[in-house]
Amino acid sequence: MSAPHSRQLVAGMIGGGQGADIGKTHRFAMRLDGHYDLQAGIFGRESSSSRAIGASLGVTAERNYGDAREMAVAEAARADGVDVVVVATPNDSHFEIARAFLGNGISVVCEKPLTQGSASAAELVRIAAANDAILAVPHCYSAYAMVRQAARMVRSGELGAIRFVDVEHASGWASTPLEKEGHKQASWRTNPDIAGFPSVVGDLGTHAFHLLRYITGLEAQRLSGRLQTFVPGRRVFDNATVEIELTGDVPARLWASMAATGHNHGLRIRVYGEKGSLEWQHEDPHHLKVQDPAGTTTVLTHGLSTLHDDASRLTRVGLGHPEGFLEAFANFYSDLAEILRARRDSTPLPERALSFPTGIDGLIGVQFVEAVAASHHDDSAWKVPASAHRKAAA
Amino acid sequence: MSAPHSRQLVAGMIGGGQGADIGKTHRFAMRLDGHYDLQAGIFGRESSSSRAIGASLGVTAERNYGDAREMAVAEAARADGVDVVVVATPNDSHFEIARAFLGNGISVVCEKPLTQGSASAAELVRIAAANDAILAVPHCYSAYAMVRQAARMVRSGELGAIRFVDVEHASGWASTPLEKEGHKQASWRTNPDIAGFPSVVGDLGTHAFHLLRYITGLEAQRLSGRLQTFVPGRRVFDNATVEIELTGDVPARLWASMAATGHNHGLRIRVYGEKGSLEWQHEDPHHLKVQDPAGTTTVLTHGLSTLHDDASRLTRVGLGHPEGFLEAFANFYSDLAEILRARRDSTPLPERALSFPTGIDGLIGVQFVEAVAASHHDDSAWKVPASAHRKAAA
Amino acid sequence: MSAPHSRQLVAGMIGGGQGADIGKTHRFAMRLDGHYDLQAGIFGRESSSSRAIGASLGVTAERNYGDAREMAVAEAARADGVDVVVVATPNDSHFEIARAFLGNGISVVCEKPLTQGSASAAELVRIAAANDAILAVPHCYSAYAMVRQAARMVRSGELGAIRFVDVEHASGWASTPLEKEGHKQASWRTNPDIAGFPSVVGDLGTHAFHLLRYITGLEAQRLSGRLQTFVPGRRVFDNATVEIELTGDVPARLWASMAATGHNHGLRIRVYGEKGSLEWQHEDPHHLKVQDPAGTTTVLTHGLSTLHDDASRLTRVGLGHPEGFLEAFANFYSDLAEILRARRDSTPLPERALSFPTGIDGLIGVQFVEAVAASHHDDSAWKVPASAHRKAAA
Amino acid sequence: MSAPHSRQLVAGMIGGGQGADIGKTHRFAMRLDGHYDLQAGIFGRESSSSRAIGASLGVTAERNYGDAREMAVAEAARADGVDVVVVATPNDSHFEIARAFLGNGISVVCEKPLTQGSASAAELVRIAAANDAILAVPHCYSAYAMVRQAARMVRSGELGAIRFVDVEHASGWASTPLEKEGHKQASWRTNPDIAGFPSVVGDLGTHAFHLLRYITGLEAQRLSGRLQTFVPGRRVFDNATVEIELTGDVPARLWASMAATGHNHGLRIRVYGEKGSLEWQHEDPHHLKVQDPAGTTTVLTHGLSTLHDDASRLTRVGLGHPEGFLEAFANFYSDLAEILRARRDSTPLPERALSFPTGIDGLIGVQFVEAVAASHHDDSAWKVPASAHRKAAA
Repeated sequence: MSAPHSRQLVAGMIGGGQGADIGKTHRFAMRLDGHYDLQAGIFGRESSSSRAIGASLGVTAERNYGDAREMAVAEAARADGVDVVVVATPNDSHFEIARAFLGNGISVVCEKPLTQGSASAAELVRIAAANDAILAVPHCYSAYAMVRQAARMVRSGELGAIRFVDVEHASGWASTPLEKEGHKQASWRTNPDIAGFPSVVGDLGTHAFHLLRYITGLEAQRLSGRLQTFVPGRRVFDNATVEIELTGDVPARLWASMAATGHNHGLRIRVYGEKGSLEWQHEDPHHLKVQDPAGTTTVLTHGLSTLHDDASRLTRVGLGHPEGFLEAFANFYSDLAEILRARRDSTPLPERALSFPTGIDGLIGVQFVEAVAASHHDDSAWKVPASAHRKAAA
Repeated sequence: MSAPHSRQLVAGMIGGGQGADIGKTHRFAMRLDGHYDLQAGIFGRESSSSRAIGASLGVTAERNYGDAREMAVAEAARADGVDVVVVATPNDSHFEIARAFLGNGISVVCEKPLTQGSASAAELVRIAAANDAILAVPHCYSAYAMVRQAARMVRSGELGAIRFVDVEHASGWASTPLEKEGHKQASWRTNPDIAGFPSVVGDLGTHAFHLLRYITGLEAQRLSGRLQTFVPGRRVFDNATVEIELTGDVPARLWASMAATGHNHGLRIRVYGEKGSLEWQHEDPHHLKVQDPAGTTTVLTHGLSTLHDDASRLTRVGLGHPEGFLEAFANFYSDLAEILRARRDSTPLPERALSFPTGIDGLIGVQFVEAVAASHHDDSAWKVPASAHRKAAA
Repeated sequence: MSAPHSRQLVAGMIGGGQGADIGKTHRFAMRLDGHYDLQAGIFGRESSSSRAIGASLGVTAERNYGDAREMAVAEAARADGVDVVVVATPNDSHFEIARAFLGNGISVVCEKPLTQGSASAAELVRIAAANDAILAVPHCYSAYAMVRQAARMVRSGELGAIRFVDVEHASGWASTPLEKEGHKQASWRTNPDIAGFPSVVGDLGTHAFHLLRYITGLEAQRLSGRLQTFVPGRRVFDNATVEIELTGDVPARLWASMAATGHNHGLRIRVYGEKGSLEWQHEDPHHLKVQDPAGTTTVLTHGLSTLHDDASRLTRVGLGHPEGFLEAFANFYSDLAEILRARRDSTPLPERALSFPTGIDGLIGVQFVEAVAASHHDDSAWKVPASAHRKAAA
Repeated sequence: MSAPHSRQLVAGMIGGGQGADIGKTHRFAMRLDGHYDLQAGIFGRESSSSRAIGASLGVTAERNYGDAREMAVAEAARADGVDVVVVATPNDSHFEIARAFLGNGISVVCEKPLTQGSASAAELVRIAAANDAILAVPHCYSAYAMVRQAARMVRSGELGAIRFVDVEHASGWASTPLEKEGHKQASWRTNPDIAGFPSVVGDLGTHAFHLLRYITGLEAQRLSGRLQTFVPGRRVFDNATVEIELTGDVPARLWASMAATGHNHGLRIRVYGEKGSLEWQHEDPHHLKVQDPAGTTTVLTHGLSTLHDDASRLTRVGLGHPEGFLEAFANFYSDLAEILRARRDSTPLPERALSFPTGIDGLIGVQFVEAVAASHHDDSAWKVPASAHRKAAA
């Protein structure tokens, strides 16, 4: 991953104010490869705090806005206006903010879940297309080099026909009632009005589901879900298990939890094929475990010359040097920068079949969340997610 | 685990002839602690081979029988007759053989699945009780020291209320069509007529299910199952996923497979409670991973002075010295020997709440297999296993 | 590993009385494969206790002796006398006891360190040869299947020329002053008069050194040692590091400790060659990690069809089923039984280049201990162990 | 680690041109937290290439220099001149370049080994002090959060008195003769004239030695070294083992290698104390294994609330999210930025006893390399590194 090869992209951010970890994370990721220059934004709902934070980030007062719509109009009118805006606010505001920018032809990176319902998510996808803007959704775990390697191995047939997939994003971060102890993030993530969906499926589940789709290239045909609330008094479902039938009747399981006591991060996927299997865990992201039918285990790591080029391209360090979450997130931003630059500079678009997740992926994620809820409320009956209909229609 | 403290028990064996690994395994396990003396048996269907094997094992020609019923009657009549008989034949013959011995008041160790249906399994339980004989089922994984430790930790409340259980016995041993290549074990295990049940649930699934019950002390209230055949042309379902609702509505998942490509053994369990979680894997059996709500991981191992006495009792080696499958199997036999000796010698029965699995456990296993199949054939609808009815009735 | 194929060997034991773990371990190992029948012995210094233990083990009063020399003479005179005697007493008595049996033509299994000095160790080797008896030393770690696999891989050139070896037997069992708290084993092992050597090198170091020699086939040319006492007031050196120059000037390091705080067992070896490297750890004995020059890691396990036959021969269980310390110890006893039976029955001796360690190995171990001590007391100057002289002379 | 709180520091770079990975690594690390703005430099020996790279990095032609001395004078004269210069050239040029900047009062980050001999290293330390400039050496592994945690645990007595330390930086990156295949980095690192020292001790060994000193706070009193060349025809020693006596006669071992076949990165340290032990490996950097005298293992990870504040301060992500090499490197740069800003802005200097390594650490590293070589050439006799004399004098 080389140094910046051309003029930086101009970026804006909504959210990421006081105590907002996710905004900081976006900024770390945007800085790492030097592709973005943050020049505009709204850093929290409270105006004086927003201004202070903006100033500390080098954003001038003029471009530190009070309202997303105002910002969208003003930036669209500037010759040096933002190329992309990052939406890192709580979920309930995603739709309005993203719509404002996309509607003005400004590309958007919007946190998941994209919106609070599939209708609004589909609407964003439509607006983005109509205004020739990019809508990207940072399921950044799929941007790890070894995840890309896994996806390439599946695509190139190294595992043979896929038999079974088991994925889980089972964290223990909220295994106690943090929301009653004034924990800010726990408060909004367990508030169904703000979180957008009354379950962990909208939050961690969509990451796991995207990872599954990204590596295997398969879509959900139907699913059966179960939602639970482990922490007494919690207002959202903090645990979920889903049985999925993928394209070609391939069975899969998904477990999402924010109350898996003792777990740290807890994102992990295992893919079983006719000729071999794969295992990847986010807590050890620079290794990929491969097993053959005889039972021999091989451990791949980035830096090996035997990896697919598209995986090797994603690392910045030598063999054996670990990379982490921020590097994966920066990969997402670098893949996006390639496209944004090509559009800005009218240079040829790179072909990256396995590049960053877009609004369609965000929409499919929302449809997944809705289907799981529908199944749960129908005593776990099989449900066909709306994404499957769309696919069948295509 | 001390050396033999009193006269050895006299044992018989049915099965375990040429190429029968499981019979050999039983003999290793019986020998390790010196509690049993093998003096009678039928070692395979073919009589001359059975005699040769019996002779090599020190069984006299007189007590090397041709037929289980004949053996049961003859041994029951001898003053020095067998105290217990091990049934290690293919599944389709379990019922007739076990009935013969139990009916003559001879205790039986019968491989799982106990029989090919819950009616016959219940019949064996009834006969054993009626004739004052022990019926034991070697779900020997639960006899590992660290599994006992896990069960004791749950029982003593160290994990608080149980929230979720995830168990899998997903092996890759038959991930290719071995049965078409003359592989003896694959041949009978994929032959529904002999295997007793047309799925891996009857084989590996019952081990996983017993492990779950053993550690948590919870029973299945209802379940939803899915069966698949991964290896083309195979006559049994070689993969299964089950969603289970345990006592108190605790959710659980179970995955059983003989075609999880690349896996070696693949038995693993994770138990999540309010105050902590546990993970145990059969491929690293002398360690138990414990996690607290803050996310700290502690690794326990046998030999630590902080273990429950009932776990420490099960090890024969010092701190850091590994034990394996045969030692666990021998633990099963040692726990059984305690009871058999007490009965033979009319000494007080030891109190061992977490001792070896009996016919009831075997029956519950068979009922589990049946409920999974019923659910699968009803498009994964929830089914209540017969064991739940019994429990409710009690 | 098949069931006993011919008449059992008659065994005797010296030691292994009250609280003597090592004697029990020998008995577990001898029982597992059924090759030995314990019929004579002296089970501790105190006669009534010895008789009680012998009786519980099935040893008749007649063959429960009071004195090793008396027993040697009596057993040698019997037609059904012992084929082999296990010496599992504290180190200071090894020489006299082993001499008594070997001198009467009775084979001996003697715990390490063989004796308290190389002169007496050499004397035992001489006596064994003169009386046509086997002298075996249970460095049983080398009898693990995956260690055999490692040795075969080195022998067959799969690693190319060996470059470097790093071995450690660094236990934490005595990292606190246990000997002051009445801990029986700690008391004699930290008493230089009984332990035979005033350092952990004689105890754990000889196991590590044998493992190194066994896997690589290389011998020590010269060495430089450092001894430390970590636990204040301890009477022996409880930690040692040794730099070794092996055959062909291959460098190696050895670390032996009984005070490596926190370690459980702590035996581990890494071997680096021109074409690959190996790592084996006793706490995970059924796996062998292999790395190639590009940095790919492959994990082998027993049960894989790609292992060397001589390694596969040593396992009793299926793929993925763990084996442990007792199985390895039983492998030692099975390899020994082959030889003892062939000699007893005048059948052809099996060819097993990598079979059990003998008196020569025990002697080389003692010479290693002496050279390390000599180096330490000469400010770590290089010393040539006596074994190197012998080899040069040959 | 918060966002930039005040005006960025102005940075220059020497080296880091075409194919120079280490220069790129520095730039990633400098960018991550946004503390530095690269505005001047010399990016390789060839002028047109240097200009092209400088331009791509946003360096103006005016401040893209041809010569370090010229640059030092020019930048020192500017009001907006560089606050710090990074020296990322091959080792043989470190001294002259660093001297030029330090002599002009400009702070320097200089790659290790600092210089090709302790006299010149000491000279740099002297010049830095005389000109009130900071000289920092990027032993960035010590900037990992869990290494900081380890150092804090030792300092606060959680391990009790230190007994033993084992550290290794044994990589396999050059286990084949890469330098004969046109591998650029292998060519200069195995060329003693450019590498500065004819052994891997100067390269990887100094990282391992710094890590040992950083965590334990102990210094080398004397040492005994052995150097080997594993790859035939190689011009430098590519493997080394060192026995060290630390402050208070604490024994330690160090292994440095670039030819440890199969290893990826290979940096690892284990520290044993009276009350516990620690293990940290660079290939899994966000975990720290802690063991207590009873043998229980606890795994700590960043994000746990129980860590020392000074360790928690070094992470940018949530519990369970991995960080890697670039984040550690960025920690080095952030700690440095604090000091540089305080000096620039005349604000109070933060107190950070365990902050970044300076010229003194670089000098001690060079003295270590020299002592190892001296010992090797005197048949591994004990040598006292010059650093020990200095310390004794103090």
